[in-house]
Amino acid sequence: MARQLTGRISFRYAFVFAGKRSIAHYALAGGEFVLDFSDRLATAIRQCANPVVVGLDPRFEQLPAPLQAGIAAGDMEQRAMAYRRFCCDIIDVVASLVPAVKPQVAFFEQLGPPGMSALADVARHARSRKLLVILDGKRNDIGSTAEAYADGFLGEQSVWGGDALTVSPYLGDDSLTPFVDVARARAAGLFVLVKTSNPGGGQFQDLVADDKPIYRHVAEHVERLASQSAGTCGYGAVGAVVGATYPAQLGELRAVMPHTWFLVPGFGSQGGQAADVAPAFDAHGLGAIINNSRGIIFAHARKEYAQQFGAARWQGAVEAATRDMISQLQTHTSVGKLRAV
Amino acid sequence: MARQLTGRISFRYAFVFAGKRSIAHYALAGGEFVLDFSDRLATAIRQCANPVVVGLDPRFEQLPAPLQAGIAAGDMEQRAMAYRRFCCDIIDVVASLVPAVKPQVAFFEQLGPPGMSALADVARHARSRKLLVILDGKRNDIGSTAEAYADGFLGEQSVWGGDALTVSPYLGDDSLTPFVDVARARAAGLFVLVKTSNPGGGQFQDLVADDKPIYRHVAEHVERLASQSAGTCGYGAVGAVVGATYPAQLGELRAVMPHTWFLVPGFGSQGGQAADVAPAFDAHGLGAIINNSRGIIFAHARKEYAQQFGAARWQGAVEAATRDMISQLQTHTSVGKLRAV
Repeated sequence: MARQLTGRISFRYAFVFAGKRSIAHYALAGGEFVLDFSDRLATAIRQCANPVVVGLDPRFEQLPAPLQAGIAAGDMEQRAMAYRRFCCDIIDVVASLVPAVKPQVAFFEQLGPPGMSALADVARHARSRKLLVILDGKRNDIGSTAEAYADGFLGEQSVWGGDALTVSPYLGDDSLTPFVDVARARAAGLFVLVKTSNPGGGQFQDLVADDKPIYRHVAEHVERLASQSAGTCGYGAVGAVVGATYPAQLGELRAVMPHTWFLVPGFGSQGGQAADVAPAFDAHGLGAIINNSRGIIFAHARKEYAQQFGAARWQGAVEAATRDMISQLQTHTSVGKLRAV
Repeated sequence: MARQLTGRISFRYAFVFAGKRSIAHYALAGGEFVLDFSDRLATAIRQCANPVVVGLDPRFEQLPAPLQAGIAAGDMEQRAMAYRRFCCDIIDVVASLVPAVKPQVAFFEQLGPPGMSALADVARHARSRKLLVILDGKRNDIGSTAEAYADGFLGEQSVWGGDALTVSPYLGDDSLTPFVDVARARAAGLFVLVKTSNPGGGQFQDLVADDKPIYRHVAEHVERLASQSAGTCGYGAVGAVVGATYPAQLGELRAVMPHTWFLVPGFGSQGGQAADVAPAFDAHGLGAIINNSRGIIFAHARKEYAQQFGAARWQGAVEAATRDMISQLQTHTSVGKLRAV
């Protein structure tokens, strides 16, 4: 039943299921009432009993050998077909295990128009398997240009079909407003870059102004936006990207951003481990989603899985790596408490 | 002759024309040597005797009525066709007048795959008319993801065919490196957001750390990248976006960024006037390019041009508005000195 709420619900259901919830937590999108992103995410996490996001970053040279075979360098149509098949196969493997996938727009865009068609198909397939789709585009602009990005990416009825989109904050509050307005109108979500996982992320983010690093200034703005859009789960439509490679900052920001979902990249390949991301969660195991891209989708090449699965049975490696990550989070973080729900 | 250098040149020409220039100012791109972006830009500006960039921001509701006629809401293929025709017509009007155009990626992306196909066609048409193509995507990411964006957008042989791309700096130096590396290898350019033209741009950009606003920290990093890639013209492959709505900062940044091209948005519709952008130029009228989007492409709706041209002769309004802007810059800034070259 809970899972049903992650999809579209009719006007009647909106009232039936609303119960003690405020009807304000639903938005009229595409002619139907849809539960807000934050509550859809919480519902999906509880149902799966884990917060794993599988990052769909299809780098051609790292695809399993059978998917690369016979495709000429520079054949964008064929490469896009390979990306489509690769990502849809992954979606079929993980749909029953995790709440969400995160396609990285850059890799699809790199292939030109055929790649972008593949992105739309991948997002559509993920939604059809009841996965939430977080489009990682780090878009940013001002005014009606920001609105154009938001219109294209946010909501099931949009051309790219994202339940949420990552955005960059450098342009300031009025650049985020159009994204927030469209997101709220369509029951979609946002994740704003706050503290990123790369080694150079601190160059500007850690500069101290008014006794606080820049990322804290951004964090406080994001928390305001989140608290203004908080759903029944307590978290809002506007989340934050906070890297797994900075456990101390994860804890610091968890404390000052009580209404903000964290999207945590950097797990696995970038060095973050389950214990490192523990501070991202609240006491109930909610509040954060943990992304793993290469560590899952290219698991067939990892020494832990290569011998058992290899390139021919790469989907098995994807499933094993996903289950292992879930298990690690359940063991080393408050995510374990979700199982009792 | 100068104009020839803005296109591809063969290996032989690279040496013939190099003369006193270092061969390092050419990059081998797509099997041919191409003059670096900064020198192509300087050459094009000198030939046109102006630094006007026409921003291609095709908002459907603002297209001239004949281009909107008969297109149903939600028909993305037809809208993309209208964008293609609109932008290619503008390119035909301005190709002999200005050095560059700046397609805004957001508006094409909003239409989904058909829109992105139109973007590739528009960029191709602009290059065929010897215009430099600055793709305004404000992309940003880390590592191999940043490299994927750079690979897709930068260089004549890339799928989106940009001579340059706008990028966002929040992720820090190691996020810019892949963009810079690809740009330099392909004789392409970058424009990094430094001080933006929107009212809220100061929220994070103006915070003061170590006695300097954040935009100055970003500016100094960009200047380092620019000085490392300086061409014969004295400016580098890495430029900065600095809004026309902040004349004081334009002058301040011109002084501390002597090797950095400025891409100045906010002229016209956002309130910037010719006198406001004067501090962006060096004494010879080089150093900055001034973008105008709505003020030119939708000039048929401006009161100055509506009566004479109207929607039926909208191309005439585009030409008149472009010539007027050129004239204003030549009158009120050091751009006037370019005419003597």
